[in-house]
Amino acid sequence: MKHIDVCLTPDLLHLHTIENTIVVVADVFRATSCMVTAFAYGVNSIVPVATIEECRQWQERGYLAAAERNARKVEGFELDNSPFTYMTEQIRGANIAVTTTNGTLAITKSRSAVKVLVGSFLNLDAIARYLKSERYDVMVLCAGWKGRVNMEDTLFAGALIDRLKDSFALAEDSAIMAHRLYCDGKDNLVSYMANASHIRRLQKLGIQRDITYCLQHDLYEEIPVLRGNALVRL
Amino acid sequence: MKHIDVCLTPDLLHLHTIENTIVVVADVFRATSCMVTAFAYGVNSIVPVATIEECRQWQERGYLAAAERNARKVEGFELDNSPFTYMTEQIRGANIAVTTTNGTLAITKSRSAVKVLVGSFLNLDAIARYLKSERYDVMVLCAGWKGRVNMEDTLFAGALIDRLKDSFALAEDSAIMAHRLYCDGKDNLVSYMANASHIRRLQKLGIQRDITYCLQHDLYEEIPVLRGNALVRL
Repeated sequence: MKHIDVCLTPDLLHLHTIENTIVVVADVFRATSCMVTAFAYGVNSIVPVATIEECRQWQERGYLAAAERNARKVEGFELDNSPFTYMTEQIRGANIAVTTTNGTLAITKSRSAVKVLVGSFLNLDAIARYLKSERYDVMVLCAGWKGRVNMEDTLFAGALIDRLKDSFALAEDSAIMAHRLYCDGKDNLVSYMANASHIRRLQKLGIQRDITYCLQHDLYEEIPVLRGNALVRL
Repeated sequence: MKHIDVCLTPDLLHLHTIENTIVVVADVFRATSCMVTAFAYGVNSIVPVATIEECRQWQERGYLAAAERNARKVEGFELDNSPFTYMTEQIRGANIAVTTTNGTLAITKSRSAVKVLVGSFLNLDAIARYLKSERYDVMVLCAGWKGRVNMEDTLFAGALIDRLKDSFALAEDSAIMAHRLYCDGKDNLVSYMANASHIRRLQKLGIQRDITYCLQHDLYEEIPVLRGNALVRL
């Protein structure tokens, strides 16, 4: 039986071997939810980069620049970290360079995996179906918050496990715990998340609408996958 | 309001500042449960050491030697990692040198804290009462399993939070998640733990009796505290 494992933060990635594994990176609030939305709205590719400066260099070469630092927009960039800014005609066929606090790091740290997929509640079912069809073990890498675990990415891991539990064995306690938390909260994720630290940070920014959106399940079929330095449609 | 935080594994300790904090180390299966039991049965002090060899050196100086490596006993040592081996008259007034896979490391890594306490379900209420009486923030350090998070230590963190939630604010998502898991499982911790990875490892060793014992709440009043290199009664 294939195994599914959960790495609760990139700071624990050293404990995992991912060379024979498909990694699903989740940064639910909001990087990976934005990426999935962007592909659903027709984007051609997304290059995750480490710095704002690097993002600007791609912008000079014709890319749209998207950035978020500490959950805030960057001056002079076309896009920020709200999924609603990706729901425009401007996106169709475009290439985007993006840098975020946690999601970009999680993606680039996973490069040695068989495949790196971008996960969110929005494309949960598409991802689950794809993983069932493949022969590899799976690891969910939760992007967390500056190295710390967070609730929303852990709940995504639990949600994916809930869809895969008949086809995959749960490798370790992190997977069991994520699944238990999801089962405990799934009937009302918005209220279950109400006291989470990132929610408190985001609510200060007045983006409850983003939160509600990012917790919706199975809106899109698109699965972004890392090819070389860019995310493209699987 | 004072804060309570949870570090889910020693491999995430770099994310926390503990200099103004009381750290409660939990290695429920079975190191810290053994330590608490040992003090309840009259031990004088326990020196946690890093290696089997170091343990032997203390033994030559008259200490009882206790060790566990990969959940198995060490040849020539008086004690192992089963709490039942500590329930003897031989313990009274004795000094013990102990080395374990995860618990010792967690204790020695916490040295810079205001105080390092040894926690387990067995002395949960005594610890909760003491922490309420102090003015410091609290961090629960889960010993985990070779750097990975585990269910039992996370549940202990959640149990302690459950006793302290009216006097302490929950600092981050790790604390919220631990508390949610405990509330989800508290009505029957033994069955809630049934699929956990460490349980599966321990059951291979035939020590279900230890597991059931270590999940009992509030048996003892003793709180081991680190003073210099040794744990003594608070």
